[in-house]
Amino acid sequence: MAITVVGSVAYDTIETPAGRRERCLGGAATHFSLAASFFTDVRVIAVVGEDFGPRQEAVFKARNIDTRGIEHTAGKSFFWEGSYLENLNEAKTHNTELNVFASFEPKIPEAYRDSEFLFLANIDPVLQKRVRDAMPDVKLVAGDTMNYWIKDHRAALELVLKGLDILLINDTEARMIAGNDNLVQAARAVMALGPKHLVVKHGEYGATLFHCDTPVGELANWRLNLEPKTFRAPALPLENVVDPTGAGDSFAGGFFGYLASQKELTADAFRRAMFYGSTMGSFACERFGTERIAKLTREEIDARFDEFRRLTHLD
Amino acid sequence: MAITVVGSVAYDTIETPAGRRERCLGGAATHFSLAASFFTDVRVIAVVGEDFGPRQEAVFKARNIDTRGIEHTAGKSFFWEGSYLENLNEAKTHNTELNVFASFEPKIPEAYRDSEFLFLANIDPVLQKRVRDAMPDVKLVAGDTMNYWIKDHRAALELVLKGLDILLINDTEARMIAGNDNLVQAARAVMALGPKHLVVKHGEYGATLFHCDTPVGELANWRLNLEPKTFRAPALPLENVVDPTGAGDSFAGGFFGYLASQKELTADAFRRAMFYGSTMGSFACERFGTERIAKLTREEIDARFDEFRRLTHLD
Repeated sequence: MAITVVGSVAYDTIETPAGRRERCLGGAATHFSLAASFFTDVRVIAVVGEDFGPRQEAVFKARNIDTRGIEHTAGKSFFWEGSYLENLNEAKTHNTELNVFASFEPKIPEAYRDSEFLFLANIDPVLQKRVRDAMPDVKLVAGDTMNYWIKDHRAALELVLKGLDILLINDTEARMIAGNDNLVQAARAVMALGPKHLVVKHGEYGATLFHCDTPVGELANWRLNLEPKTFRAPALPLENVVDPTGAGDSFAGGFFGYLASQKELTADAFRRAMFYGSTMGSFACERFGTERIAKLTREEIDARFDEFRRLTHLD
Repeated sequence: MAITVVGSVAYDTIETPAGRRERCLGGAATHFSLAASFFTDVRVIAVVGEDFGPRQEAVFKARNIDTRGIEHTAGKSFFWEGSYLENLNEAKTHNTELNVFASFEPKIPEAYRDSEFLFLANIDPVLQKRVRDAMPDVKLVAGDTMNYWIKDHRAALELVLKGLDILLINDTEARMIAGNDNLVQAARAVMALGPKHLVVKHGEYGATLFHCDTPVGELANWRLNLEPKTFRAPALPLENVVDPTGAGDSFAGGFFGYLASQKELTADAFRRAMFYGSTMGSFACERFGTERIAKLTREEIDARFDEFRRLTHLD
């Protein structure tokens, strides 16, 4: 089933202990769609400026990603500059220029309307809500957010959470939303706001999946009562982390892309999705920006999936 | 096979968000031996003061732990006071009184001499080395250490590491020994100092086991070339962490106790040992001090082991 993703397509200037890259292709929607494209059809909604040309377009095209929803407009694309010199687990932001994103009004191409899966990457929750409302027929909605929206745009964010099937966030964000440091208690508090499934990412330690035990609102039966309620996937212990930018979005792409490729969303499918998420997240860190995942093969993905299995399974 | 453990038997005053306990039974050797006693025979070497009486002795006796190596001497037992009010993952030490431990000279009872496994809990590396040298016939030696010895007693510690088959430490300690923040690189650097196997504990995120790929010195064949080189066990996401004191030592007890109960130390046995370590560590956190593990049953352990399997396995 096809996924429509709305989010940023951007340029990143990144410095890590492994080196520096100026203005490489980035953005949550970019990382997400590249990772998801190995599993299903992906359609992007975003806005870019005049600095986004055929060379960038080609990165999407090479992975058969539908870019008709990427609006081209006057001005410059979203730009982010950050470094990971002291701590590879947390970016230090040096500069954020919204540019064309400041007046972004997502438009959904007619051809995207039959998408059954929708991913709301980390952008203004007001825009996330607008896209979600404009696509009432999707079957499964997942999303991401960040500290900025949690702290200063809580009301708008809560409206988004209410309509989410799956939320993917990191530890700090989960604890911040819940106002609770205990992971299990925080997970329950976050799910009480709407999401029926929650993935909390722990950076180099992996991620935990929680299934809600008291679903809010209406739920199709195939998403009810999944057991066990908790599942943990590791991250691969990497000897060389070149650049963690986009690892979380690549995790989301692998996770949601795999789910979208499944006939039934069983507990088993969710568990495997966690492994595919970890798999794509681990690849993302191996090169700068999109360099690694843009050139990945399905064989490499399956080999790493097996590596994750050996890393965690008793026999 | 029997394990001899040398380390502290102590009193702890502990404050956590769940409450406060004054002078409860603690110490690394205590937590280790209680956890290991569910898997094999355990013999303790330690020193206590006049404040250690029949009631404390009974905690060991109830688990059939050999206490003939616990020396009773004039003075007070080792005492530690700490809190976890801000961060359940890291204790804040308020007071440490070595007391009778300051002049501890480990004596090994004749009846302990046929122990095949030796665990050097976190004490002065000079003492660890002395006990190790006094038991030349043991088949497998594991140990623990802490930041204090790593920073200020490096030379003595390196002599201990050289003779270790297995070292169990946490992330911070591994990075401190190696002077390297990357977990995989740090693990390799630590194993280059001697340990053929390394367990790095990640607190609430579990633990990673590394098998050395270029063994140092002589190694019996059954400990060579274990594959895969890396294994990750999760920690149980706990809704209520009452007191994390002793969780690391309980992990070590479950891990090493299980290994000591095995006929052959295969890669498979090491993986299961990681799960038993996580199992015992998770129980330790559920009550203050030794309260939970002292009253545990083998059935509860096996049920939780299965829970860990469901938490991590795809099918």
